Amino acid sequence: MTGAVLDGSPRTRANQEAFRRIVSAEPVLREVRPAGEVLPGMTRDLVLTSGAPLPWSEYVGGQREAIIGGALFEGLAADREEAIRKLDAGEIRVGACHDHDCVGSLAGIYTWSMPVFVVENAAGGNVGYCNFYEGNEPKRLNYGVYDDEVRDRLRYVNDVVAPVLDEAIRRTGGVPLRPIMRRALQMGDELHSRNTAGTLLFTHALTPALTAMAAGGDERVLEVLQALDGNDYFFLRLSMAAAKASADAARGVEGASVVTAMAFSCRGFSIRVSGLGDAWLRGPHATVQARLFEGHTEDEIAWMGGESPITETVGLGGFAQAAAFCLQRYQGGSPEVMVERNLEMYEITVGEHPHFLIPFLQYRGTPTGIDVARVLETGILPLMDIGIAGRDGGQIGAGVIRAPIECFVQASDRLAAG
Amino acid sequence: MTGAVLDGSPRTRANQEAFRRIVSAEPVLREVRPAGEVLPGMTRDLVLTSGAPLPWSEYVGGQREAIIGGALFEGLAADREEAIRKLDAGEIRVGACHDHDCVGSLAGIYTWSMPVFVVENAAGGNVGYCNFYEGNEPKRLNYGVYDDEVRDRLRYVNDVVAPVLDEAIRRTGGVPLRPIMRRALQMGDELHSRNTAGTLLFTHALTPALTAMAAGGDERVLEVLQALDGNDYFFLRLSMAAAKASADAARGVEGASVVTAMAFSCRGFSIRVSGLGDAWLRGPHATVQARLFEGHTEDEIAWMGGESPITETVGLGGFAQAAAFCLQRYQGGSPEVMVERNLEMYEITVGEHPHFLIPFLQYRGTPTGIDVARVLETGILPLMDIGIAGRDGGQIGAGVIRAPIECFVQASDRLAAG
Repeated sequence: MTGAVLDGSPRTRANQEAFRRIVSAEPVLREVRPAGEVLPGMTRDLVLTSGAPLPWSEYVGGQREAIIGGALFEGLAADREEAIRKLDAGEIRVGACHDHDCVGSLAGIYTWSMPVFVVENAAGGNVGYCNFYEGNEPKRLNYGVYDDEVRDRLRYVNDVVAPVLDEAIRRTGGVPLRPIMRRALQMGDELHSRNTAGTLLFTHALTPALTAMAAGGDERVLEVLQALDGNDYFFLRLSMAAAKASADAARGVEGASVVTAMAFSCRGFSIRVSGLGDAWLRGPHATVQARLFEGHTEDEIAWMGGESPITETVGLGGFAQAAAFCLQRYQGGSPEVMVERNLEMYEITVGEHPHFLIPFLQYRGTPTGIDVARVLETGILPLMDIGIAGRDGGQIGAGVIRAPIECFVQASDRLAAG
Repeated sequence: MTGAVLDGSPRTRANQEAFRRIVSAEPVLREVRPAGEVLPGMTRDLVLTSGAPLPWSEYVGGQREAIIGGALFEGLAADREEAIRKLDAGEIRVGACHDHDCVGSLAGIYTWSMPVFVVENAAGGNVGYCNFYEGNEPKRLNYGVYDDEVRDRLRYVNDVVAPVLDEAIRRTGGVPLRPIMRRALQMGDELHSRNTAGTLLFTHALTPALTAMAAGGDERVLEVLQALDGNDYFFLRLSMAAAKASADAARGVEGASVVTAMAFSCRGFSIRVSGLGDAWLRGPHATVQARLFEGHTEDEIAWMGGESPITETVGLGGFAQAAAFCLQRYQGGSPEVMVERNLEMYEITVGEHPHFLIPFLQYRGTPTGIDVARVLETGILPLMDIGIAGRDGGQIGAGVIRAPIECFVQASDRLAAG
């Protein structure tokens, strides 16, 4: 593989092009629409979920429960049994988020009526989507739980939060996300497991429009402001949509060994690579170093999907830990370890992001564009910050994971085979 | 002096008490009032300025110009010549901010009509005040410039910004500042030369009230939101008022060698020490390490007063640099140097602030309560982050200064003399 990364080789040029497309993306939030209106290929009978696609029968545990919950939320079945029967019969279908230009957080459930952020890459014309954060409660649909409370919160997002934000976004004339992301990295976020500044900056960007709406008599505005307040994770979905729109710009560069997606399902971890189009390179589960909430133990950790590592794909999250020392309280580690891990990621990436800068590293750009070849050469596996789901549903902690080597070996073989 | 800091000595107990009062202060922003209504001893013919008090004839350069500008702004004289004549004749009087429970930024001009933030220490009952930030333009009254533009901006603060914020603060029921300051330290501020997060968090805290005011038809709200937007320094005045209210809680603890104020005028640097009441210990100018804006040179640096080092007095600014790596771009230095300097300050302070925590130092509390005895023992001089004024008026850069040893020698002698 070594020869492939020499300057001027076709591989190097292809990787530089993939890198250029990722870092020159200009994600702009345009509007909020129901998934059914905007996601390519979305249909009423479809429930999208995280990870490389699997037959329905392969989904287990929390991810299976979340799919069933999504079907119920959408009214595709009257009860759990009917939902399972219809899923078994193919009357309710299951799809993979990435195949519909969106990314899922944890189980990552999308159904027809759910609102999604529409984020256009103004530099490339492609669009990335992400649905809304459910709130801080540990029990959420995306952590494999569906009950009346979860349903009511999802409905509130559909009926109140989404329309108010859509109007505010339109009145604002769209919200360029890269400047917010750039500033958030100067304010302690890495935009995967910490989004405190991003959420505040985003709310701030909409405040003039929200204020004007309130002045016009819209009584929901104060309520929505309260919903955003203290909801430090809200911006993650915008970070994910922006990352999806940026990474997708690098899809399909011939010969490029740059990773364009990393995602997991209940069955394992997978990656997509620029030069291999939309193929998934599948591997086993990632390895995890977790910090669990009080009262939980490691044997409770459950894999139920997750596509938020799209942020790492574009130089955020685990690739920007040295910007977010506050994470140590949430997911463990020390500032020294965070810096060390962050520096390690420069060994496996094509370049440094010209807009996402890390103050502690003297404004060095974040390591961006994971190169399959370098991962194999160095044995350094991509690092991701994630929330940890529990066997019985709900979030039980947070931590870092490392992608499994198998995905990269496969990708390399496929690239070599041309 | 060494014996004086042994555990259990009267000095140690006194210093612990002074420290306790500083760190247990609970500064709450109550309202905005004109200086004349609330500052103790404020009169219509009085212009307050930064630093230990001097006779009018001693003020030179930008600080003198700023005092004249203040008199003109307040309508105490029709033109510059009349203002100087009246100041010479004592018909317009000059006072020191600290003697009126307020603190001045740079020249630190207060006149009767200027609005001030009223910050009560809910734990001690005492009150600290600070007036408003003039805006980002390099030419400001507090940098020794007074012209029509400066006047118009000050009037806008008086007539629009202050009344709108006062109403929003009252509607909010007051704004506890310590939680905002605590959060801002997790988001890259040290609350002296960087107040980006503080400003955003403060605006955010008032947003529900401002939105309700807009809903009620107040058309100034949007304008004020715009004035706050991008005005990253806005919160400094609240940080200063909170620091003043906190430091003043430790005034007059018998025998305590803890610094309660650091301030400078055009003539030199001075400190106040808890056990010495309101006496000023005067020294020469501080030493400076500056990073100047493009096109400026070191010989232009001018001293025209400054009391924002009240923030360092309570464990912020130069005592919290390791929380604010972004400062390197504004005032020079590297992350390594910032950490080193920050750690040095633990050598000269009584304790670690229980609320102001530094993520990079694994949530160690900021070094707080500068002990005159330790400064002399170690030879380590307190470090402060400041804006740098130019000879011809206006801000020409930023940097760090070190307090002069003379102030501490004097304080030590006075304490020893009882």
